[in-house]
Amino acid sequence: MIKVGVIGATGYVGIEIVRLLQNHPQAEVTVAVSQSFVGQKISDVYPSLRNICDIECQDLNMDAIYDKADVFITALPHGISKEVIPYLLEKGKRVIDHSGDFRYKSVEVYEKWYKLKHEMPELLNEAVYGLPELYRDQIKNARLVANPGCYPTCSILGIAPLLANDIIDTKNIIIDAVSGVSGAGRKTDLPYQFCECDENFKAYGVATHRHTSEIEQELSFIAGEEILISFTPHLAPIKRGMLCTTYANLKKDISTSELLDLYKKHYDGEFFVRVLGEGKLPEVKYVAGSNFIDIGLVVDKRLNRVIVLSALDNLMKGAAGQAVQDLNIMYGIPEQTGLSAPGLYL
Amino acid sequence: MIKVGVIGATGYVGIEIVRLLQNHPQAEVTVAVSQSFVGQKISDVYPSLRNICDIECQDLNMDAIYDKADVFITALPHGISKEVIPYLLEKGKRVIDHSGDFRYKSVEVYEKWYKLKHEMPELLNEAVYGLPELYRDQIKNARLVANPGCYPTCSILGIAPLLANDIIDTKNIIIDAVSGVSGAGRKTDLPYQFCECDENFKAYGVATHRHTSEIEQELSFIAGEEILISFTPHLAPIKRGMLCTTYANLKKDISTSELLDLYKKHYDGEFFVRVLGEGKLPEVKYVAGSNFIDIGLVVDKRLNRVIVLSALDNLMKGAAGQAVQDLNIMYGIPEQTGLSAPGLYL
Amino acid sequence: MIKVGVIGATGYVGIEIVRLLQNHPQAEVTVAVSQSFVGQKISDVYPSLRNICDIECQDLNMDAIYDKADVFITALPHGISKEVIPYLLEKGKRVIDHSGDFRYKSVEVYEKWYKLKHEMPELLNEAVYGLPELYRDQIKNARLVANPGCYPTCSILGIAPLLANDIIDTKNIIIDAVSGVSGAGRKTDLPYQFCECDENFKAYGVATHRHTSEIEQELSFIAGEEILISFTPHLAPIKRGMLCTTYANLKKDISTSELLDLYKKHYDGEFFVRVLGEGKLPEVKYVAGSNFIDIGLVVDKRLNRVIVLSALDNLMKGAAGQAVQDLNIMYGIPEQTGLSAPGLYL
Amino acid sequence: MIKVGVIGATGYVGIEIVRLLQNHPQAEVTVAVSQSFVGQKISDVYPSLRNICDIECQDLNMDAIYDKADVFITALPHGISKEVIPYLLEKGKRVIDHSGDFRYKSVEVYEKWYKLKHEMPELLNEAVYGLPELYRDQIKNARLVANPGCYPTCSILGIAPLLANDIIDTKNIIIDAVSGVSGAGRKTDLPYQFCECDENFKAYGVATHRHTSEIEQELSFIAGEEILISFTPHLAPIKRGMLCTTYANLKKDISTSELLDLYKKHYDGEFFVRVLGEGKLPEVKYVAGSNFIDIGLVVDKRLNRVIVLSALDNLMKGAAGQAVQDLNIMYGIPEQTGLSAPGLYL
Repeated sequence: MIKVGVIGATGYVGIEIVRLLQNHPQAEVTVAVSQSFVGQKISDVYPSLRNICDIECQDLNMDAIYDKADVFITALPHGISKEVIPYLLEKGKRVIDHSGDFRYKSVEVYEKWYKLKHEMPELLNEAVYGLPELYRDQIKNARLVANPGCYPTCSILGIAPLLANDIIDTKNIIIDAVSGVSGAGRKTDLPYQFCECDENFKAYGVATHRHTSEIEQELSFIAGEEILISFTPHLAPIKRGMLCTTYANLKKDISTSELLDLYKKHYDGEFFVRVLGEGKLPEVKYVAGSNFIDIGLVVDKRLNRVIVLSALDNLMKGAAGQAVQDLNIMYGIPEQTGLSAPGLYL
Repeated sequence: MIKVGVIGATGYVGIEIVRLLQNHPQAEVTVAVSQSFVGQKISDVYPSLRNICDIECQDLNMDAIYDKADVFITALPHGISKEVIPYLLEKGKRVIDHSGDFRYKSVEVYEKWYKLKHEMPELLNEAVYGLPELYRDQIKNARLVANPGCYPTCSILGIAPLLANDIIDTKNIIIDAVSGVSGAGRKTDLPYQFCECDENFKAYGVATHRHTSEIEQELSFIAGEEILISFTPHLAPIKRGMLCTTYANLKKDISTSELLDLYKKHYDGEFFVRVLGEGKLPEVKYVAGSNFIDIGLVVDKRLNRVIVLSALDNLMKGAAGQAVQDLNIMYGIPEQTGLSAPGLYL
Repeated sequence: MIKVGVIGATGYVGIEIVRLLQNHPQAEVTVAVSQSFVGQKISDVYPSLRNICDIECQDLNMDAIYDKADVFITALPHGISKEVIPYLLEKGKRVIDHSGDFRYKSVEVYEKWYKLKHEMPELLNEAVYGLPELYRDQIKNARLVANPGCYPTCSILGIAPLLANDIIDTKNIIIDAVSGVSGAGRKTDLPYQFCECDENFKAYGVATHRHTSEIEQELSFIAGEEILISFTPHLAPIKRGMLCTTYANLKKDISTSELLDLYKKHYDGEFFVRVLGEGKLPEVKYVAGSNFIDIGLVVDKRLNRVIVLSALDNLMKGAAGQAVQDLNIMYGIPEQTGLSAPGLYL
Repeated sequence: MIKVGVIGATGYVGIEIVRLLQNHPQAEVTVAVSQSFVGQKISDVYPSLRNICDIECQDLNMDAIYDKADVFITALPHGISKEVIPYLLEKGKRVIDHSGDFRYKSVEVYEKWYKLKHEMPELLNEAVYGLPELYRDQIKNARLVANPGCYPTCSILGIAPLLANDIIDTKNIIIDAVSGVSGAGRKTDLPYQFCECDENFKAYGVATHRHTSEIEQELSFIAGEEILISFTPHLAPIKRGMLCTTYANLKKDISTSELLDLYKKHYDGEFFVRVLGEGKLPEVKYVAGSNFIDIGLVVDKRLNRVIVLSALDNLMKGAAGQAVQDLNIMYGIPEQTGLSAPGLYL
């Protein structure tokens, strides 16, 4: 049994990790840290877990918790992890982190987009970007996995086959993305109040969202050249789910079905990537509650442009589910373990 | 491995049964009947199941399907089951039915509230009302289980301890209930359209809803006297979930905490019934996606009246989840098997 | 042109008053107080009003604002109004207040339910309860109108004809009520976050909600005897709207249609009260965005009990709309002025 | 008083026209045609209008209705209007039509995208495209106004200043659009059921939506060259509202604030077009319930690309509101008449 510590266990990502591990046959949550709810049962904070997981929330006291788990999954706000992650690595623990801190290879890019000084640049080289479909081999032995952002996971997996096969113009890639409100975390800011979100739809962070740089880094690695993109996130009145609509100009003549074949070949053997048949398109409803990413596409012959649709659950494949997938890889367990629930549809 | 046939597999209850059985280690869906989608994969109808369950929908041809399963779960509209259930029983199959047809002991009551002639009255005596917390022993060996309605499950379990302990006036029981829209099934009627339900709230079937009679039957059995109730269902703009607010006048002086103790004792050992502590109240969010029913209550000392709140997921403990619970009991499997997912909260 | 000052103009009730007065031909907002947004345009806070109402938010400086308006509508949190209302009255201004402070005739009842010491008991006698259908004549000349709560307006108007005609048992009145989230105001508390409310349904304040006492006061006045009620509020995932389902035992034999006739007679000439025909029931959708209260009912002959359904928009007839109705009465203007918009339905 | 006939009065667009005209001081609905509800009051179909508009629905009998109004607003499904519109024009009536039938100058383009033979090509030349910001002068005297589609209105007004000022590359215009569910009309198709839309988000009609050709026609007229665009509509779980996110590559160096100035100048005097200040972006919430279109934009200096956000209410500026605006222009009434309601925000 893998002993897992969850740090930041009562945020929306943290609690999703706790929830998923309840049905994981080879891992268990042995310590849950939540500074806001120290001493309370996790099921007092999230009563859905009553009689399922009633462990008590711990304070973030590293000396007291480090030896209670083999691996820690951290879902903390930026800036706290400096006190946490180097300590855990030093104690021989493995870490899967959800912040943006270890996703970058370039300190400069991180500091420019996050407007923060990076406190642990020496870890950037070692950290593995936790997208199994790109870095499975490195994840296996990683001490520190940087779990990708939700938008980057959805965007990168949607575009990767186009770049890997060199069939699009790299200058006009446009990603128009929509997320559910849980992506903002369990905050009490006014814009996330029910009456402010309900029946609303809006863009935010236009031309400035941090995930732009994360997507660009990975697309550039795949393409072997510097890729710059337009990325526009939007907020929809749904709890979970994400859809990316990506536009790229084709460099050669290819049909929708040929391109889908190419995608299917590219993702052959990837359980969690479902490439849809021609005429079918992803919907948030099909993936919400599951760890799948669904991908569909249409070639617009009039314009010689491809429109790729990719959908995932921002809390699952976009965060906690992917963390569990990484955990399984790190411990040599079949990747689907604990992740076999299909979406709820309803 | 128990072989299960699902008849009416593409309705909202049917597909929930199919979904649940994907994670059931001792049961599998061997045949799925859906007359609207014959020949299509069930995952073409519900793409959330893609790569999880891709079996083909069959026509309702009894001769062709009966020997493909040990037990059949029927989720059919009223009136079709006459051709189905007696046939299956005769072939030695066991059946869990979701219609109202076999929930009644009295043909008269059924015919009065359903405004239909009962076609198989001879089965009423044999059929077991599939509420495990009341009829577990009979369910074990039943050939025909009549799965209770969602409102009755939520109402009866909320009130049962009061009647069993003879502490309320039986004349003024009022049940004010609220359901999510999936309770209406996968219909295309105008009142269930998004623009008609969204941002709306309304009562329906006031003083005439069929479930009234089903609740009254069971409460009368518990009380040992005829119980008549007010039952008012409402429709809320949520997909799944149900909350009943029940009012009853107390015959004796008892505090909230004493009454909660009595409830806890009454439901001792019932895994799926969670009696909350004083000061805590059920919310739909805590049970949606799970098979739990949560019960909380407040004694209003000013009025010597108790207000009981009970919440469940209408598709789970109110339908498909309870069917799986019944299935487990019928086959001597631990009752929680395949039902261990907590609610999603998000 | 009546000059109106709105104090607390950027809360959800305040901004609704501002919005309504934009289409009022005989009243205009001459001063808008919002301590959180001093110096900002009201249309910067609520961009829906851009180019419609761009006045600047003022600080709550009584000396600076009192002479800018003839009448003030106050929508403040409890406890601030002590500095505001006596001052305004002394300066000869008229006031319509939205707090609970002036709705009670008994200081004791107020202090018991609000758990506060009343600071201005001398004003209680003078203040008029601003429910036009009950107190129209007193409102005409009132200096201080206490605008009723949303739940009380919806409950009292639904029950009044039963008590006025002495046809129900006064001991078993039960009001089961549901409100949209805007009823909580523009707060940033966790329970009102989108991800916490969406797809949820719950009761709150069971047996303890303050509006219980306000409803009891007015029902007692109508009945001429002390009335105690059960009142249970619930929260539904809608922005605006409210539905009350009220149960009462009939003292005499009366049919649904006879009772509806009695209601129609009782509310004859009341433009904003729409008594529905037999077989029709109110829905939130029919009143949202309008100042109407819709009332329907069903007599349950089996139980000799009446179930009354009443629906209104909590921000309109439940707050801001009623304030404008009161304003019109106070200034001798036709009551519908500025309130003629029907509900939006969509 | 202008007498207005509404044909198709009980669809979502038709009823919005009826609703708006209730508050129009110089127009009144004198005849409402609805073949599904002949003989019923319009307020029986939409009870929100009870006591506001109780006229009876008429059958589509042209001989019986034509002389009851001066102008007819038609909101019919495709293919019926052939029997209606030429007849009305011949009788000397003016018509504002909501179908796609008269929006095109080219029969070929219409027939290609609508996959229908055009039955009244002789009217195409005469018909005026009812977008006041582009064709106000022609609308004044038009007999037949073709009210634009919702997506085209939102897209064209968002892009027009860029093309009119020749500052973008015309080859890479991408419009990513999101609509509320009411855009589909009052249909009972499965995809528009509550349980299918709620908590969902999806694209549809990718590379094939008819509105693409309508947008292209108008953009080509403005640019003076043939413009082809990518247009991708999406469905969000909201009742009303629409947001377009448009991407275009800039041909010259221009800042966000300079470009906004250019937009403000372009739309100077247009009451219903609100160009937002730098740093502000449109939200559906700000326009829902009003006839405004809000436009904001960001220049992405990294990519020399502009992202334009435009939002409107698909039932108002996208349909019924614009029809009333056209009506006002046709009759020489101030354009805002009957359209002064701000958005509801809540």
